[in-house]
Amino acid sequence: MAGGASTSGRSVTSRALGVLDAFDSEHPRLTLSEVAERSGTPLTTTHRLLAELSAWGGLVRRPDGRYEIGRKLWDLGLLAPVQLELRQVAAPFLLDVHTATRDTVHLAVREGLRALYVERISGRESVPVVSQVGSRLPLHATGVGKVLLAAAPDEVVEQVLRSLTRETRHSLIDPRLLSRELADVRRRGSSRTSEEMSLGAASVAVPVTVERPSGPVVAAALGIVVPVHRRDPGRLVPVLQVAARGIGRALSQTAEFR
Amino acid sequence: MAGGASTSGRSVTSRALGVLDAFDSEHPRLTLSEVAERSGTPLTTTHRLLAELSAWGGLVRRPDGRYEIGRKLWDLGLLAPVQLELRQVAAPFLLDVHTATRDTVHLAVREGLRALYVERISGRESVPVVSQVGSRLPLHATGVGKVLLAAAPDEVVEQVLRSLTRETRHSLIDPRLLSRELADVRRRGSSRTSEEMSLGAASVAVPVTVERPSGPVVAAALGIVVPVHRRDPGRLVPVLQVAARGIGRALSQTAEFR
Repeated sequence: MAGGASTSGRSVTSRALGVLDAFDSEHPRLTLSEVAERSGTPLTTTHRLLAELSAWGGLVRRPDGRYEIGRKLWDLGLLAPVQLELRQVAAPFLLDVHTATRDTVHLAVREGLRALYVERISGRESVPVVSQVGSRLPLHATGVGKVLLAAAPDEVVEQVLRSLTRETRHSLIDPRLLSRELADVRRRGSSRTSEEMSLGAASVAVPVTVERPSGPVVAAALGIVVPVHRRDPGRLVPVLQVAARGIGRALSQTAEFR
Repeated sequence: MAGGASTSGRSVTSRALGVLDAFDSEHPRLTLSEVAERSGTPLTTTHRLLAELSAWGGLVRRPDGRYEIGRKLWDLGLLAPVQLELRQVAAPFLLDVHTATRDTVHLAVREGLRALYVERISGRESVPVVSQVGSRLPLHATGVGKVLLAAAPDEVVEQVLRSLTRETRHSLIDPRLLSRELADVRRRGSSRTSEEMSLGAASVAVPVTVERPSGPVVAAALGIVVPVHRRDPGRLVPVLQVAARGIGRALSQTAEFR
């Protein structure tokens, strides 16, 4: 890494960052001792770092004594260009799909062995879903995940097939069945799930394809979640395809994706 | 602050945080020397801290050598409960207003002397606007800002009236005119602007009122932006009022606002 760092200086900064690492979506609010335990930091050091991070505004101490992420980190986080161009280009198309269907619409990209949800639109009449912006969900159990997996390199597919988790009793955990389904997804150009991630919810998804000099590339997946009792979610595939083509065309014209 | 801090330890952490403070919406991408200058940190220390923050994932070094906020801080920022309950309750209502109008819809709260935009929905047919989620805009020049200012304590109004800025040539910078307009906003229960923040854009906004034991409180402002050539944006006020009442009723039932 950088030269000229004193060992003590490096360890102080990395300890402060380690305190922040204690917080995640499963642990958004933590007590002093929970932060110390999760970050492996002595209690007195944790106490001091929490006070410094709170004085800065990165953390907030709640009336119940627990800490949570503060407005300063919210502000900084909004500056991150995480798929910023993709999200900006896609947002109006997601809105179009939602306006036409009133269901929850998602945009996800593959991040390693997970589907990272980068945009989401959900209305009052939409079925409740587990995913939020920033969620990472298993590729094999979600509609957008199956689309992303079907387009992933062989080694990614092999890794996923070796570690299939049972999210619900309907999750596909047989590698041969999932392989066959991925072949179907590639042939049909769309995926579907039925209660594989959440009971009560079905989904369909399609790839967002960008034209590059080297050929078409799947840049993201666009999906929609509906109540499982609704008949034939497959009829929503053309709606998604129109929106996905619009996103893909717009992306093909932007610098980041060229 | 916390006891037991060694001076050197405190200064290392605060220097690392100071490096992050160099980034804001006007400066989302910075070179090494820009960070050093903006944070008042020696170049070698800045270099080391940037490397540590990048190794952690909080910053990313771009191919052009400049640094920007990384995915780690995006993830942490999403955990911040900045008006989380308000945003979650309000989002479907914003979507309803957008679906009915196709215009850009905003939700803002007052943060000191600024309107902080906490939610925004904008479609492809909407007029381009300057505000984004996380933007802070002047209270006197925006529709949501005027609503929030009309409900603010006297000392806030006085401070704003003393420092009126000319955002466009149509901005209201005469304290007496603005005072009179705020009285109108309180009487009518809605505000409007015409090219006061952005040329080409007009807006209307209404308060989101929550019932508390001590009486009604303005918790936020709901606004809509339209092209200035469109006739009579005032006809959108009832649409906003229906949505704002829905948000207010839902908020009155949640713990955070009781």
